[in-house]
Amino acid sequence: MSDQLVRNLERQVDQLTSRFALQDLTSDYCHGFDKRDWERFLAIWWEDCVWEIGPPFGTFTGHDGIRRAVKDVLWPAWKASTHFTTNLRVTFDGPDRAEGVCDVDCIGTTSDGQAQTVSATYRDRFERRGGLWKIKLRNVTMHHFSPLVGITLSAPR
Amino acid sequence: MSDQLVRNLERQVDQLTSRFALQDLTSDYCHGFDKRDWERFLAIWWEDCVWEIGPPFGTFTGHDGIRRAVKDVLWPAWKASTHFTTNLRVTFDGPDRAEGVCDVDCIGTTSDGQAQTVSATYRDRFERRGGLWKIKLRNVTMHHFSPLVGITLSAPR
Amino acid sequence: MSDQLVRNLERQVDQLTSRFALQDLTSDYCHGFDKRDWERFLAIWWEDCVWEIGPPFGTFTGHDGIRRAVKDVLWPAWKASTHFTTNLRVTFDGPDRAEGVCDVDCIGTTSDGQAQTVSATYRDRFERRGGLWKIKLRNVTMHHFSPLVGITLSAPR
Repeated sequence: MSDQLVRNLERQVDQLTSRFALQDLTSDYCHGFDKRDWERFLAIWWEDCVWEIGPPFGTFTGHDGIRRAVKDVLWPAWKASTHFTTNLRVTFDGPDRAEGVCDVDCIGTTSDGQAQTVSATYRDRFERRGGLWKIKLRNVTMHHFSPLVGITLSAPR
Repeated sequence: MSDQLVRNLERQVDQLTSRFALQDLTSDYCHGFDKRDWERFLAIWWEDCVWEIGPPFGTFTGHDGIRRAVKDVLWPAWKASTHFTTNLRVTFDGPDRAEGVCDVDCIGTTSDGQAQTVSATYRDRFERRGGLWKIKLRNVTMHHFSPLVGITLSAPR
Repeated sequence: MSDQLVRNLERQVDQLTSRFALQDLTSDYCHGFDKRDWERFLAIWWEDCVWEIGPPFGTFTGHDGIRRAVKDVLWPAWKASTHFTTNLRVTFDGPDRAEGVCDVDCIGTTSDGQAQTVSATYRDRFERRGGLWKIKLRNVTMHHFSPLVGITLSAPR
């Protein structure tokens, strides 16, 4: 049994652990945004991050930009939302950098009371700094953002 | 190369294996419920489990409670359903205990023939006993449970 | 510390790595199909694969069959689609063979401009050859494929 073999195992286990950490970031985006847990949402972004939401919202940079996007624009725009992230595909570019692409299905109600369906793709650049993975860049391509005409979403009582 | 290094790897691999085992439980909930595979559904719960479904269904305890909830209440209430679980976020509290939060999107048809959309969050307490992970507690928060007015769901022929 | 212990770790790490590789195949199916990335889509299938789509599409075999199904039938039938794969449950049958079952939620617009909702289950046979996992067989059970009457899907501008 060689040192080389154990070193190799360590490298593989590190990458598997990273895979789950990246998945956790995409999950925390949903939990933080939908459950209006600001600390959880902010914690997924590096301070020098870029969030390219695209039309009609634009691009936001840094923690200040994230704060403005969420607190001034997006939370006021939604009465309730649930995002479901799937299909996360990760490509590592060294041990501390990775690119990801995932798809999100979202259903919710905008502040005007209209139920909406949204489908989008997120393209991410992740970086690990000081042992911690966070998002450096999230680019959004929206496939549709459309009213569920005639449908009202409400919780059972 | 030290024993310590290999022990550390073992601990990490055990946690990665547990992560997949917990994901499997959330998947088996969906496969078991939607495909009406009772053995698969029951196998995810410890005998002393609690299932807090909330309004309008209430709380069910133990395998007898699970059986009543599913066979007497929920299966009769749905003609067909598909649950999609995403965003599973796990926090370990020791090697044999973990908490999880995940979101579920569900579309189906209730027994009255009405298509429905459901969105909910599951908060779980998982325990490993004798090497096996199962659910000790599942708490459900329903965000909406609403009719897809004007829509009829059917399979192609 | 024994060789046996490290061999055992290697086997476990190989299976964890395989789990992610299989998940990647189910993700690439969605990314390849929906983003019309033919190379990515084709790369998930072994040359001697079988794709049992079922009614009303039928069964397709080999890369030629996949090409015909996608390029002649399915892409022309959809103006836009997004597939969300969840609940992947894997059972290994040796180190190089596995069975999977997962559920897919799909929303999109058929070529006639009608918004659609689809729910299906994929049952897969995966094989690893030369260190690479691909799909040998994908069987589709469609739960519904139904028009979202009165709803129009479009991207924001």
